[in-house]
Amino acid sequence: MVRAYEELAALGYLTSRCGAYSTVRRRARPPATRIGAHDGPRPAPLLDWTALATPGGRAALSDLPRPAVADGASADIIDLSRLTADPALAPHDELRRCLKSVLVRSGGAALDYGDAAGWPPLRETIAARMRVHGIAVAADEVLVTAGAQQAMDLALRLLAGPGDRVAVEAPTYGMAHALLRLHRVTLLEIPLRDDGMDLDALAAALRRRRPKLVYTMPNFHNPTGITTGQAHRERLLALCEAHRVPILEDGFEEEMKYFGPAVLPIKSMDVGGIVLYVGTFSKVVFPGLRIGWIAAPREAIVRLAAIQRASCLAGNTLAQAAAARFCAGGQFELYLRRVHRVYRRRMEAMLRGLAEELPPGVTWTRPAGGYTLWLRLPGRVADEERLCARIAREGVKVAAGRGFFARRPEAAHARLSIACVDEARIREGCRRLGRALSAADARA
Amino acid sequence: MVRAYEELAALGYLTSRCGAYSTVRRRARPPATRIGAHDGPRPAPLLDWTALATPGGRAALSDLPRPAVADGASADIIDLSRLTADPALAPHDELRRCLKSVLVRSGGAALDYGDAAGWPPLRETIAARMRVHGIAVAADEVLVTAGAQQAMDLALRLLAGPGDRVAVEAPTYGMAHALLRLHRVTLLEIPLRDDGMDLDALAAALRRRRPKLVYTMPNFHNPTGITTGQAHRERLLALCEAHRVPILEDGFEEEMKYFGPAVLPIKSMDVGGIVLYVGTFSKVVFPGLRIGWIAAPREAIVRLAAIQRASCLAGNTLAQAAAARFCAGGQFELYLRRVHRVYRRRMEAMLRGLAEELPPGVTWTRPAGGYTLWLRLPGRVADEERLCARIAREGVKVAAGRGFFARRPEAAHARLSIACVDEARIREGCRRLGRALSAADARA
Repeated sequence: MVRAYEELAALGYLTSRCGAYSTVRRRARPPATRIGAHDGPRPAPLLDWTALATPGGRAALSDLPRPAVADGASADIIDLSRLTADPALAPHDELRRCLKSVLVRSGGAALDYGDAAGWPPLRETIAARMRVHGIAVAADEVLVTAGAQQAMDLALRLLAGPGDRVAVEAPTYGMAHALLRLHRVTLLEIPLRDDGMDLDALAAALRRRRPKLVYTMPNFHNPTGITTGQAHRERLLALCEAHRVPILEDGFEEEMKYFGPAVLPIKSMDVGGIVLYVGTFSKVVFPGLRIGWIAAPREAIVRLAAIQRASCLAGNTLAQAAAARFCAGGQFELYLRRVHRVYRRRMEAMLRGLAEELPPGVTWTRPAGGYTLWLRLPGRVADEERLCARIAREGVKVAAGRGFFARRPEAAHARLSIACVDEARIREGCRRLGRALSAADARA
Repeated sequence: MVRAYEELAALGYLTSRCGAYSTVRRRARPPATRIGAHDGPRPAPLLDWTALATPGGRAALSDLPRPAVADGASADIIDLSRLTADPALAPHDELRRCLKSVLVRSGGAALDYGDAAGWPPLRETIAARMRVHGIAVAADEVLVTAGAQQAMDLALRLLAGPGDRVAVEAPTYGMAHALLRLHRVTLLEIPLRDDGMDLDALAAALRRRRPKLVYTMPNFHNPTGITTGQAHRERLLALCEAHRVPILEDGFEEEMKYFGPAVLPIKSMDVGGIVLYVGTFSKVVFPGLRIGWIAAPREAIVRLAAIQRASCLAGNTLAQAAAARFCAGGQFELYLRRVHRVYRRRMEAMLRGLAEELPPGVTWTRPAGGYTLWLRLPGRVADEERLCARIAREGVKVAAGRGFFARRPEAAHARLSIACVDEARIREGCRRLGRALSAADARA
């Protein structure tokens, strides 16, 4: 009773004056014919939302139910499709302590509106982290975003509008396709070779099609796991410099180098200021915090921050402050050291398992880090659905290759991820993959 | 030393094998001419970011340094310009307990990627809250966003592209202008009268200019503080129904009714499903959490969620889970009850102070809640800057009226806010305003 009274008062539907009884304030009611309209069957809607939607809005919806992931039939499914840091390895207690510390030390500021470019200590922390990877940026050359996806959204808002062209690797990150279609951008698909984007094809595209932007993932490319070498990075940069075309370098797993030679990001060589480097915590730890960033020339950062401010005022200050604390306290490095060991063992188990179990005719990449490998399946893309269904029936979930191309490719592929599966399950997954593909092989 | 070693290992620049010494892995270096390029003076940039920017990107930057807020010269400034809930009243301890509880109970999920439409318990909580305000929506008719600004950004992405027209009140929220310009939308400014948007003017605009959307703030309108009546809301809805034009209802301070009759939102009467209702916690409590929402027909929510997913994958799950907990535990209602008393007293102090101190010729609105009042200053818009400078010299910071119009208005205005100033400071602020405007009056 007291609680109900309190709620009415809090809502402003009850008034009380000193020394008088409380009175319920007059509250206007909607017309009688309209009350309860929601209780019975609803009338026909007045608007056709499909027809109302902008072309970009329509494209976003059409991207949604993409069947990139083949569902398994068995209850005991080994999920080799997830591309996210294993939540079981996340240092929850450490983050809780960081949140507590932030609220105690700077609770007011951390819960108030922040700067559109990000929480200043986090910008400092990220700049320092970038310098470790050879990228010499100051804090005001870093813009904090809500994950890498929003960073890419801002970059596109700045640089590419409807009808403009953007060069992308084929295959590439499926949600990059969705984002580019939302922006009504035309995709120029540049084939990926074993050593990275086909630079002759890129050179031709730069010459003839004048893209507004070249989007590339030099490390542990999604979906293939390919890491490009120093010479490839230098030539890619030189090509874009010559054509004065900005590069969007997606360093989403920069921190996930756990074997093989480490190569510095393209951005580390960007003397001319043409690279927008996108980083993120999400593929390393705590994706739910939504912390990503762009490192770019000041002139670009100022403009990106203006777009950020117009589109969402500012980011989540509490999450940004907690992430800054998590890095400043050294927990981030300790966490990385721990998970590098885990993922290295998982990747080794996967590579061993594939070599032992898969039939001849199936090939795969050998990543230097990250989570994903790319299987070239026996057969053409027309066989892909059938092959993935067969894999699913054996109890393994993979990401079908088709979802990573805009245009239909020639061959059948699947992306495997070691992110959320332990070594024993990886070995068992390889046995199942072997059974599924050997049977497919026999039938073909 | 151990720490430095650990960091190198974690970064992947150091390898160790069981039973062997650790070795530093080969790390490729950028070409010698490029190393240290950032240390000396930088070479001329290769790109002209102004020329590269899309028209929307250019518009966003041009909006940034708007001089809406007149800076005071004195050190003892009374800030009547801030439109944000008073951080001094925010229940930090309660939120900290909510965060802790969320991390303990559902830490894994709250730190992982969430649903693009929002944390399911928060969607339920918001739907329940909407029903309290007469809006009958289910959880799947609610999309959680990063504040009201991002909600509006999504709505525009769905409904209005370059060259499309959107009807807005004049004056209106300045950052709505910035957002609409980012979308390259043409603004149809509909004059605001004492009782709300001029509906005859709106009817003419709907007939002749076919806007894609009508944007309105029926409660405690920003900047004027005007709340529209039931009849006005019904006619506005009927007009848009007749023209099949969606309404974007900005209920940013729905929870801030603290005196006067409470009128239900337009959305509460929306039988035909043409209203996208935008709500937010940011103007009530914890803006740094960035929690807003859209309540709309399912057909619209599905499309908005698709755009959300393409543009940022999903929102901040931790903040959403904490907000849900804060509401479910009853702390939100208790907080509202407490701050309603505070803001009511502040608004009363402001209205009393203005009546006692301002010279004849200055008029102002009498809000039914919220934070803002709108001063009609003596003189024309050409005098506004001079008047605001005079106010600033007396030690009061106000928001100049010009920033709330797209086209230059006739009269001079200023927005006052009671949000972050206590009663004593409000009374002193009114005295200073009185001095500034009486002197101005005498000079005119």
